[in-house]
Amino acid sequence: MVRNLQQWHELAQQFRVDSIRATTAAGSGHPTSSMSAADLMAVLLAQYLHYDVQHPHRPTNDHFILSKGHAAPLLYAMFKAAGAISDQELMSLRQLGSPLEGHPVPVMPWVEVATGSLGQGLPIGVGVALAGKYLDRLPYRVWVLLGDSETTEGSVWEAFDHAAYYDLTNLTAIVDVNRLGQRGETELGWNTHAYALRAEAFGWRALEIDGHDLAAIDQAYGEAVATQDRPTVIFARTVKGKGVAALEDLGGWHGRALKPEDARSALAELGGERSLQVQVPKPDLEAQPSVLGEPQPLRLPTYRPGTEVATRRAYGDALKALGAARPDVVALDAEVSNSTYAEAFAHTYPERFFEMYIAEQQMVAAAVGLQVRHYKPYASTFAAFLTRAYDFVRMAAISRADIKLVGSHAGVSIGQDGPSQMALEDLAALRAVGGSTVLYPSDANQTAKLVAHMNDCAGVVYLRTTRESTPVLYEPDEDFAIGGSRVIRSSSRDQVTVIAAGITLHEALKASDRLKNEGIPVRVLDLYSVKPVDVAALHQAARATQGHLVVVEDHWPEGGLGAAVLDAFTAPHYTGPALHLIKLAVRALPGSGTPAELLHAAGIDADAIVDAVRSLLRQPAGAR
Amino acid sequence: MVRNLQQWHELAQQFRVDSIRATTAAGSGHPTSSMSAADLMAVLLAQYLHYDVQHPHRPTNDHFILSKGHAAPLLYAMFKAAGAISDQELMSLRQLGSPLEGHPVPVMPWVEVATGSLGQGLPIGVGVALAGKYLDRLPYRVWVLLGDSETTEGSVWEAFDHAAYYDLTNLTAIVDVNRLGQRGETELGWNTHAYALRAEAFGWRALEIDGHDLAAIDQAYGEAVATQDRPTVIFARTVKGKGVAALEDLGGWHGRALKPEDARSALAELGGERSLQVQVPKPDLEAQPSVLGEPQPLRLPTYRPGTEVATRRAYGDALKALGAARPDVVALDAEVSNSTYAEAFAHTYPERFFEMYIAEQQMVAAAVGLQVRHYKPYASTFAAFLTRAYDFVRMAAISRADIKLVGSHAGVSIGQDGPSQMALEDLAALRAVGGSTVLYPSDANQTAKLVAHMNDCAGVVYLRTTRESTPVLYEPDEDFAIGGSRVIRSSSRDQVTVIAAGITLHEALKASDRLKNEGIPVRVLDLYSVKPVDVAALHQAARATQGHLVVVEDHWPEGGLGAAVLDAFTAPHYTGPALHLIKLAVRALPGSGTPAELLHAAGIDADAIVDAVRSLLRQPAGAR
Repeated sequence: MVRNLQQWHELAQQFRVDSIRATTAAGSGHPTSSMSAADLMAVLLAQYLHYDVQHPHRPTNDHFILSKGHAAPLLYAMFKAAGAISDQELMSLRQLGSPLEGHPVPVMPWVEVATGSLGQGLPIGVGVALAGKYLDRLPYRVWVLLGDSETTEGSVWEAFDHAAYYDLTNLTAIVDVNRLGQRGETELGWNTHAYALRAEAFGWRALEIDGHDLAAIDQAYGEAVATQDRPTVIFARTVKGKGVAALEDLGGWHGRALKPEDARSALAELGGERSLQVQVPKPDLEAQPSVLGEPQPLRLPTYRPGTEVATRRAYGDALKALGAARPDVVALDAEVSNSTYAEAFAHTYPERFFEMYIAEQQMVAAAVGLQVRHYKPYASTFAAFLTRAYDFVRMAAISRADIKLVGSHAGVSIGQDGPSQMALEDLAALRAVGGSTVLYPSDANQTAKLVAHMNDCAGVVYLRTTRESTPVLYEPDEDFAIGGSRVIRSSSRDQVTVIAAGITLHEALKASDRLKNEGIPVRVLDLYSVKPVDVAALHQAARATQGHLVVVEDHWPEGGLGAAVLDAFTAPHYTGPALHLIKLAVRALPGSGTPAELLHAAGIDADAIVDAVRSLLRQPAGAR
Repeated sequence: MVRNLQQWHELAQQFRVDSIRATTAAGSGHPTSSMSAADLMAVLLAQYLHYDVQHPHRPTNDHFILSKGHAAPLLYAMFKAAGAISDQELMSLRQLGSPLEGHPVPVMPWVEVATGSLGQGLPIGVGVALAGKYLDRLPYRVWVLLGDSETTEGSVWEAFDHAAYYDLTNLTAIVDVNRLGQRGETELGWNTHAYALRAEAFGWRALEIDGHDLAAIDQAYGEAVATQDRPTVIFARTVKGKGVAALEDLGGWHGRALKPEDARSALAELGGERSLQVQVPKPDLEAQPSVLGEPQPLRLPTYRPGTEVATRRAYGDALKALGAARPDVVALDAEVSNSTYAEAFAHTYPERFFEMYIAEQQMVAAAVGLQVRHYKPYASTFAAFLTRAYDFVRMAAISRADIKLVGSHAGVSIGQDGPSQMALEDLAALRAVGGSTVLYPSDANQTAKLVAHMNDCAGVVYLRTTRESTPVLYEPDEDFAIGGSRVIRSSSRDQVTVIAAGITLHEALKASDRLKNEGIPVRVLDLYSVKPVDVAALHQAARATQGHLVVVEDHWPEGGLGAAVLDAFTAPHYTGPALHLIKLAVRALPGSGTPAELLHAAGIDADAIVDAVRSLLRQPAGAR
């Protein structure tokens, strides 16, 4: 086959020119980081990426992830050359309302995931490649362009590890080794051999090339495609700012646009503006994803009220049931599936379960990658350890990704294992994710219903489950909507509303029984939907009980259930008596002990609730 | 030298026996994970760990970190054999109030950091080893025992990378390759060769041994100590549950205590109880840490009111000043020191600055390690990217670590770079860390004061800085206490209090000027201390302005400044008019744009504040 090196060179120069033009027009951005990878991308776009630009959702399309998201101008230059966007759109870079944001986000159909937090593109690519190899069973390839600086992120090595373990020969990583990070030289500089040794030790084929030698790039891509036994990574030595002598290999030029006069001379040096259009190679236009099964009626598990079942177990049962009903449901777990009960799904649907070992970042990234191909991923681990992947969850929201996260072993009620295993910040962290949904079921039947509803819920959805077995409270035929709540004890004479969810709801019920015996009827509200929260029900409860509320949660006082309740009473919507709200939460670092001991020590058990109710009723009238 | 293999064997058996006894008494725990590493630990304790048990804070002591924290029973058995704790204390494992928690925490002097979230021990060890080699300049050694399962955490490879880069020959990692994770076999099983290749590629010396061959363990430790050019890792093939046939190499025994009758036969098989005492080798009893300088009077930078200075720049200036005054102050940054302005310190005190490249987990872990040796670490990156290390921050709190975290580029006000670079959840995340302090200064002089106060503040302290230059508001001689606030506009006729911090305080001041022109005087409160929050000042403001509050923050609505304000009004302390509070926050995913455009689009600029104030005053009286 004749390769047109000169055409590729022209295309690469156009990418450089357009990267400079767009960033200079914007007054900010990363032209030099774009220029180093321009040759690599010219050959990829013109020869190797099989992609139907007119049909970006075609199932057989290759996938390209710009892990070094700051090179967004290069990506947009590629889009222009491929006919996806106009030059005018290109020049809207970084302007308010433009889909060409400073770092790529999927607000245009050719971008599938957000990047810009470094070290995330390859782990996400692992997820897309898992979908290609094991679910879709289509021959598309996943290409990820990384910067060299980001290889210091551990998540990149989680990805190297998992890609090799899962034999992802359909994944190719290209590392733009331009030697310069934001503030100076990288650890390894241009020592591509050191990089290659690492990648090979992690089970990859590693190639080292001159990233500006078009024939070498062509050959490396060809070898990557031909390699059938391992994923391939190409470490390409490049020059930051390549093509403009005043920028080449210089510090101080990261994230800096050229001034208009400098841009003019740079463009001249690069041969001026071009308007080349590329015929991107077409993918197979016929092939379809493998059919994993037909949807079936959903038959959720049911539990008899009064029996004791842990919500984590109900999660496992419900996920398995969902798996039977919905062939697009997939599950991942970080080596604790016997604790989260994801194992029920794993044993029944091993072809749709991905063991991610103890690598929570990779787990969440893989979930994001799987949903790129429209699967419905449920990713579980101890809730405490989801904090490990918080940046990935944050970015998943910016990716507009639909993923389900499930955290078990929440709160001090796990008992003896101690604070390292207790999630006490997960509600705060997950509530503070853009567009997220946060659920914290209180019994097994409710859990099952919520697991089903999660499946149709967009964005990042988080389910918090409890380690301990707790009484089944609800009938199996009751439904529980996301955004809802349940008044589980009430009378016309209620003096206080106790608001709880999960483990503390059971303490609230005990407290309610004791207070009833004392002649103090209290309302108990199960606030299982922490976000969105049932504002109307909270207002109604406050009006019904003279504004007397006690919120009790197995969580730090900040940002959790109590915060969700308080938010519901901000202006301008609430009209009713002034609030007198006591928040019971974990206020001192817990240790080990039995669940009951720790709930008591933290002041979130029935005793504490009883005391709080009494103290509210003792307060002088007029105090808030 | 004659090595007493039989004594070591007896000691290892005692560790196994004690691990079983303690966990059986507790009714939970991880005996089998303790048993696999017992031989490794017997040789370490009896021959290689130089440690003065009576003086656990002796500066020349070696450091031992149990990264596989679930093997806590083994650690406690070592403490008993070393004479640190009694058998009775050993048997208090996992009981309420016992310092022998389910996973190690530094509530006894022989434990320096909490472990139990896997993959953290080695990165923390890197921090301690950095202190030893570059600051203390003492010959102590840092030993870290890892499980094989945790090597899938990327953070472990960040540690391998950084240890080699920093030439930490004083660091030795021991990996207990017992082949079995919590729910089954590990990725690499007993393939120690595959592990060794990875470690060598990352620049370490790797040894592979039979982890039950005491002579081989002895030789490997000897080689590790003798190796002068690289850190050493020992991959030891072991058997989970070693020593008890009914447990050896079996799945289903992770995190499971033996029943009393099974424990009895296991103990018999192990040769029964022993009460060996070990003479742990003593360290040098004379050597002292290197003196890095004498404390000097602190001369903080000052800024002229009315000039425009970014708080991130003031952070850099103040840190440099603090570095001059306090020789124990050290700094770390994740390859963005030219953006966070940590570079001012780095250039002036290169011997106390550690470039951690783009590895935020390692950065926070290193900070925890450095404070083990009583240094005062300031670790900075973009606030958005501190989310990458959230589990490390969570665990730092459990470690009772005194670390300072500084996040720059907070909020939509960073402008064009887009949402991947905007911290919008950092206040929520950092508030929900046990015992944390959260600061968000509004001007440069205030920033400088807070940077100084942070230094004497225990626990995890977080400072949020702003990318944009903002007017200097305060005189350089004003002080700003942690937990304080500042009324910056007020009159006796104020109708509403606007509460803000950081970038939004400047919007509040603009709004205040405009409203004043409309005849609506408003109070403006600078709530720079987000946690602890100035409850008294908030109550006073609410009383002064009829309960009318507007809180405005460059953050998601959940868990941030507004949540801190609402928390201040929970019962039982507030007495005053009912609150009418409007929370202005970022409610939709932002894009790129100018800072002013994005503040406006998010509804957190002066326009939005003016509207909110007007709408509060339009509300019918009696509505809350």
